Amino acid sequence: MTRVLAAEATWTGARFERGVRITLGDDGRIAAVGREAVADEVRLDGRALLPGFVNAHSHAFQRGLRGKGEHFPAGAGSFWTWREAMYALVAELDAERMYELVLAAYREMLAAGITTVGEFHYLHHGPPADADAAGEGDFALDDVVLRAAKDAGIRLVLLQAYYAQGGIGKPLSAAQRRFRTASPEVYWRQFDRLAERLDPATQTLGCVVHSVRAATPDELAAVASEARRRGLVLHMHLEEQRLELEDCRAAYGRGPTELALERGAVDERFTSVHATHTSRAAAERLFSAGATVCICPTTEANLGDGIAALHEFDDVAGGAARLALGTDSNARISMLEELRWLEYVQRLARERRGVLRAAESEAGDVAGRLLAIATAGGARALGVAAGILAPGSLADFVSVDLTAPALAGVDVDDLAAALAFGCGDEVLVETHVGGRRVAGGARLENAGAVAR
Amino acid sequence: MTRVLAAEATWTGARFERGVRITLGDDGRIAAVGREAVADEVRLDGRALLPGFVNAHSHAFQRGLRGKGEHFPAGAGSFWTWREAMYALVAELDAERMYELVLAAYREMLAAGITTVGEFHYLHHGPPADADAAGEGDFALDDVVLRAAKDAGIRLVLLQAYYAQGGIGKPLSAAQRRFRTASPEVYWRQFDRLAERLDPATQTLGCVVHSVRAATPDELAAVASEARRRGLVLHMHLEEQRLELEDCRAAYGRGPTELALERGAVDERFTSVHATHTSRAAAERLFSAGATVCICPTTEANLGDGIAALHEFDDVAGGAARLALGTDSNARISMLEELRWLEYVQRLARERRGVLRAAESEAGDVAGRLLAIATAGGARALGVAAGILAPGSLADFVSVDLTAPALAGVDVDDLAAALAFGCGDEVLVETHVGGRRVAGGARLENAGAVAR
Repeated sequence: MTRVLAAEATWTGARFERGVRITLGDDGRIAAVGREAVADEVRLDGRALLPGFVNAHSHAFQRGLRGKGEHFPAGAGSFWTWREAMYALVAELDAERMYELVLAAYREMLAAGITTVGEFHYLHHGPPADADAAGEGDFALDDVVLRAAKDAGIRLVLLQAYYAQGGIGKPLSAAQRRFRTASPEVYWRQFDRLAERLDPATQTLGCVVHSVRAATPDELAAVASEARRRGLVLHMHLEEQRLELEDCRAAYGRGPTELALERGAVDERFTSVHATHTSRAAAERLFSAGATVCICPTTEANLGDGIAALHEFDDVAGGAARLALGTDSNARISMLEELRWLEYVQRLARERRGVLRAAESEAGDVAGRLLAIATAGGARALGVAAGILAPGSLADFVSVDLTAPALAGVDVDDLAAALAFGCGDEVLVETHVGGRRVAGGARLENAGAVAR
Repeated sequence: MTRVLAAEATWTGARFERGVRITLGDDGRIAAVGREAVADEVRLDGRALLPGFVNAHSHAFQRGLRGKGEHFPAGAGSFWTWREAMYALVAELDAERMYELVLAAYREMLAAGITTVGEFHYLHHGPPADADAAGEGDFALDDVVLRAAKDAGIRLVLLQAYYAQGGIGKPLSAAQRRFRTASPEVYWRQFDRLAERLDPATQTLGCVVHSVRAATPDELAAVASEARRRGLVLHMHLEEQRLELEDCRAAYGRGPTELALERGAVDERFTSVHATHTSRAAAERLFSAGATVCICPTTEANLGDGIAALHEFDDVAGGAARLALGTDSNARISMLEELRWLEYVQRLARERRGVLRAAESEAGDVAGRLLAIATAGGARALGVAAGILAPGSLADFVSVDLTAPALAGVDVDDLAAALAFGCGDEVLVETHVGGRRVAGGARLENAGAVAR
């Protein structure tokens, strides 16, 4: 059952182009991309095709905090008080509630055109009673994430988190005990158990060390070394809050990014999540090692983290840096909003336009780079063959309604910029994962059925 | 035909509450607000009612720039190069194209829950041939705005702009000649002409001096004096770009806000649009005179204007300041996105949460204040009896779908925060202006029909 999709405009990696045909194979991948018209092609007039967004950093269960933690009596409002509210949510979460929240978050993601989620997963164990029953914890919530992703229909990279201490040199608190991985050995044993439970068509595993707060330098080195041996991506929260840098310097005489670099964690499969307060020197080392930086604009804004000095990093300003985007706390789920505010926050802070220009674009294209960051950038960070419409890539894509009011009168040449800066998620009308429709209207499927 | 609306939750000025009934009169206004159940009330389960958003600053025709002006070759990208692109759009606009763009912008606004627009209108004249025919210009595009607003169904405050020079001490450029008002006399003559062409149910007039660039201090004083005599609101672009402050200081020995204050423009009917680079001292004088500051977050971000030091202004930080919001360039039309980024930009720049707390809220409510700014704040800036669901107010409101995925599981107590920080416009499903449905589904009307 091969289908050839001839949309009015198709994303070719850096821009939308007319006259492109995408051939879907029957293996959930793209079989071919070309320009030849085919007799029984499915014409999608008034539609553009974009690779599905790749959400490189999510804590799906935090969807349960939406609308909460937004009161600030006596001016108190910090990342750390927010974390207390999050821990209160954790305390009341059982497997059933966890499933509901993760499913709801993933369905919202699909409706917003996100086809792959990197779930940075550290809430491993059921409520205290269950968790304490086994000495190592029950890891019951790992399976919940797999099940919810499968039921939603989203592609999942389960970024399984190592979490062994409650702060540098501190034991786990009561809430944090549900996050625990007692040792690298316990961690990898569960990792191998999970590998056998994945849906082979849509699920893979990646590796996480939660932060320099949650693991010792030796544990970080041990997990990173094994991750590299296995060829896995490795993600880590790094330098989101200034306090983390201060604590790390006080304990180890260096900042978190330097520590990760020295302990061998950083290569082209490494992703630093946030990097809000990363110095120019440390950032240049990250980028030159081929690592990705994942920015989470709405969450970092909500939490008052601060503004990364992206314009100072030559690799970023020159367009060569590897960036990705995440919806993180899922207080709001919209990759279009994330990607425009990645650029907008820089414009506001630097008082100039066009900060994140694409390296290869003589015309100084920004929107194309933002869309590439939200698709191919995330796919690279997660190690999945998605984020691009190319032969052999996964057939994960979203259909853009060119007749939507927000896009009326917009030419294909301006489509990337209009989409990036001018649209809400209502223009994303149909989402496919592995060639299968998982959200939105059924025009494409119907068209396919008629054509066959 | 009186209708009583009993929604699951209703906005009462600072929060959503259960059990509130809104009685719609047959004059397009709200007749009563109470808590008594009525026999034939229209029950709106799964719905909340919010006053329509009031967009206090719009240049509707700039909708034609969506997707344009977003390339930055050789790093060139400033407000002033964007203005060149805008002038290029102006050069090709005739009345027909102007009508299409304004109509499209206003329809998008209604779909985004905006029921009143303050159109800061300076593109008065048709293309050069027409404009030059009459010595004063033809003011043909003023009528186009009135017609497009009426056809869209949105409430309009036409903020008619005075624009007499092309920069301090400079003649109008070719593009700017279509903006011109040759003198205060010509300006008021056209103003009076417009007053007779308004739709009395949905249209009013307000007064604008475009900026200190576009009028001399004497002209500013003359227009402001007559506006005050007539009891009109007066809006002015102030201190969006640093260059404006520099030029004004060089010419007049004081900044734009000081000049407006000294020339008698500022009272409780005055709105300073942007105030991005306004000093603490000038801002305190603005606020203590009762003026409003209108922030336009997405446009200011797009243009790289900079970040207003709102946290430094005691009146803002204390919650007493009058603020409003505008979609300005209409590159994107979403008041939900505008209102959350009003707060988010402050959080990022100050590295703390909860910057714009409500004065009256001991609990430190932020979302309630943001929603009030986007409704009542705008209404005050425009001088319309809207933005609040109270007896005698205009029956301009929007219906929130509480069953939308983004609001699933959210309690009424958390609704304001979930809406402000967690939702896109897709949760706003029905928009009414003057009691008449102008956008979205027809559930409310149908319910009314069934109940009668």
